[in-house]
Amino acid sequence: MSEIANTIAALRAALGPDRACDDPQTRELYATDDTPGRCLPEVVLFPHSHSEVQAIVALARRHHLPLVARGAGSGNVGGAQPVPGSAVVSFECMQRILDYVPAERRITVEAGCITGALQAHVERDGLFYPPDPGSSPYCRIGGNLAMNAAGPHAVKYGVTRDYVLGLRAVTGTGETLCTGVRTSKGVVGYDLTRLLVGSEGTLALITEVSLRLLPKPEGRATLRAAFASTASACAAVARIMAQSVTPSALEFMDAHALAAVRGMGAATDLPAASQALLLVEVDGDRATLARQVEAMRSALDGPGLLQCDDAQAPDAIARLWQARKALSPATKAMAPLKINEDVVVPVTQLAALLEAIEAIARKERLQIVSFGHAGNGNLHVNFLVDPSDAGLMARAHEGLRSLFRKVLALGGTLSGEHGIGSVKRDFVSLELSPESLALQRSIRRLFDPDGILNPGKLFPAD
Amino acid sequence: MSEIANTIAALRAALGPDRACDDPQTRELYATDDTPGRCLPEVVLFPHSHSEVQAIVALARRHHLPLVARGAGSGNVGGAQPVPGSAVVSFECMQRILDYVPAERRITVEAGCITGALQAHVERDGLFYPPDPGSSPYCRIGGNLAMNAAGPHAVKYGVTRDYVLGLRAVTGTGETLCTGVRTSKGVVGYDLTRLLVGSEGTLALITEVSLRLLPKPEGRATLRAAFASTASACAAVARIMAQSVTPSALEFMDAHALAAVRGMGAATDLPAASQALLLVEVDGDRATLARQVEAMRSALDGPGLLQCDDAQAPDAIARLWQARKALSPATKAMAPLKINEDVVVPVTQLAALLEAIEAIARKERLQIVSFGHAGNGNLHVNFLVDPSDAGLMARAHEGLRSLFRKVLALGGTLSGEHGIGSVKRDFVSLELSPESLALQRSIRRLFDPDGILNPGKLFPAD
Repeated sequence: MSEIANTIAALRAALGPDRACDDPQTRELYATDDTPGRCLPEVVLFPHSHSEVQAIVALARRHHLPLVARGAGSGNVGGAQPVPGSAVVSFECMQRILDYVPAERRITVEAGCITGALQAHVERDGLFYPPDPGSSPYCRIGGNLAMNAAGPHAVKYGVTRDYVLGLRAVTGTGETLCTGVRTSKGVVGYDLTRLLVGSEGTLALITEVSLRLLPKPEGRATLRAAFASTASACAAVARIMAQSVTPSALEFMDAHALAAVRGMGAATDLPAASQALLLVEVDGDRATLARQVEAMRSALDGPGLLQCDDAQAPDAIARLWQARKALSPATKAMAPLKINEDVVVPVTQLAALLEAIEAIARKERLQIVSFGHAGNGNLHVNFLVDPSDAGLMARAHEGLRSLFRKVLALGGTLSGEHGIGSVKRDFVSLELSPESLALQRSIRRLFDPDGILNPGKLFPAD
Repeated sequence: MSEIANTIAALRAALGPDRACDDPQTRELYATDDTPGRCLPEVVLFPHSHSEVQAIVALARRHHLPLVARGAGSGNVGGAQPVPGSAVVSFECMQRILDYVPAERRITVEAGCITGALQAHVERDGLFYPPDPGSSPYCRIGGNLAMNAAGPHAVKYGVTRDYVLGLRAVTGTGETLCTGVRTSKGVVGYDLTRLLVGSEGTLALITEVSLRLLPKPEGRATLRAAFASTASACAAVARIMAQSVTPSALEFMDAHALAAVRGMGAATDLPAASQALLLVEVDGDRATLARQVEAMRSALDGPGLLQCDDAQAPDAIARLWQARKALSPATKAMAPLKINEDVVVPVTQLAALLEAIEAIARKERLQIVSFGHAGNGNLHVNFLVDPSDAGLMARAHEGLRSLFRKVLALGGTLSGEHGIGSVKRDFVSLELSPESLALQRSIRRLFDPDGILNPGKLFPAD
């Protein structure tokens, strides 16, 4: 029997025959995540419990088998893409709610719990789990932790990291690690919880997660504002973030994004001269909504504002968000491949960034569509390309490098919520110093001395 | 010249003659923090900049000189207490504001910046830095980060960790480490920022800190509620934390605390039968205050409520808080020594914890006064003792161990905001597993291979 066949036999013995699958169809299904490229894993594993994950890591260590943790495979930096000779560890069979105490605003779930299901579960009790990545209807909480996922609500409510009280995980040595607390405060020892959040499956496999919850806001209202230029929309973003009412979402769409959704028949009621769109949400006590809407209207008002609508009724709100919701399918239809970046700059630098993006598009002759979470200065910059056009791909790569340099020069960061994975690893050393990278690699070796946890991700190639 | 004289000469050459002080008076002044016990440092260092801190660490490494970082020395777990043969690194000469951008809700300061000064500085622009340890008029932000300080506002606004965007520090190898981002989001690499927050000066000396700020709430209101029993007050705490309005402070005082402040002439307007007191603060838009007060009143109302007052005018608010403010001097006057614990349990377990504390006090014949941040389940349990009474001290130690065991059995943690330092290090292994401790010690060795940064703190003795 070959080495890998031996390994798979051992895994099958540990998990049961149907939960270590190496049939071609299963391997094909798990050969990629929501990122271009694919690589067949040797086997796909479906653990049912923490102790099964521990058994997997022990065997993987013995057999030098790389393990790629996978939530829903909805990430778009290749974080859950298999590497050659690896096993995918899918957490989809671990989605139990282990402990839910509404009176303590706390829930403990297995890592495979679907984020949207968790949200719906706690909303029945008037509670609220704010992080809302676009994939929340199907993504899994373990993946959210691995990437420190965010979404539009982050501008008011913060990111996944801010809601994790503690977790249970298996390190690369096969040891169980319990971190954090079940209380809303705790300062005993180093913060291993937040070291694991955002570590992209390279330090440990997260099996169980305790999350804090908030009271659900009573009501929400939405505003949609059309502007005559990118610059005037960005100035409005800066005005909103400089006054005292923090919106629960503040989304931006550039002229190309607007054109794309109009091409799909959305947002037809906007003035023809609209070159940028802001979508603003406020939430809270019903008694405060009118005042919050007024604060947003007054901050939105300025040179270049063409039209401003607001809504509080659910169907009217949905109508205003239509342009934003149509965006993802619209841009996907525009080109064979969408390189989806996720840069962040201080909100006061958003206009400068968008200007630089236009310059890059002109210089490299690229089609670039930008939109995103403007209240955080977090822009999704989409390069629409064709992988069969080598010249175009080279220009796109050049454009990416220019983009990242500009972002860093403006005081920003390469990724706000998507992470690094395999696709951005070569750019990490633009942002992190050699000292910081060396320390991080050393930490990785502590947790995973054999390098079996998601190798080839997060750090530049050695 | 002796080895230490050599070391001091080298430090004096690097910093200047007046900023490496080994005169008896200065050494005496820095021989302790706000913790019983003292130990003379060999020398006290007053760096003026990041690069001077770097020079200090380089020399300390060469000369095997332990370094004890010190903010204001207001901690009460011995975190800033010198160890034998050590140098204190005081950050009091590093309190500059380096970069303040109100429009981005961000401020960067040196580690010696006084927390209250920072708060006052940003409030002029309508901004708000929420963490508010009791020592905020004089404590320093670097110390707040080292201990992950909190305070009454944590129940609504979170702790120091939640406000740190990034930092600059010098590790035990003398290397400069820049962590985090200047934006409100960022996921590039491991979260070294939060690994350093709460690390009690054992991983690196923090020199510069970037903090995010919030808009300042427009108004606040206070309620004070007296209860006939501890249990009825705890039930009210649980009711408050189970409804949708989150108070900005929710403080508890037990019968002994009440008796203490009454002995000082405070809170004389409370019913004689009062056995427990809650102080509740709400904040936000003025338009919402009345409704928030109503929500608190309705949650406070239940069996055992004797009296409930509320106030919105500053002097009336101050009157209601009088009992809480009088507490620290009142308890200090009660005994030669106050052992001030800082345990946390889930809010639903607060009554069980307080019952257990009464049982411990009876069994060990101890005087125990409890109060604290009830909304976080964070109780300051004060053992009032006399160090000259060996029998009493032994019973107190026994009582502490029983307390910690009970706290952990209730799902809690040993420290909510004070940290471990030297005084709680022997109890840490009650909470952290051997695996977790071993990993944390390994991380410490990565950052500080020679063990020169605050040795003898945070972890149990080897």
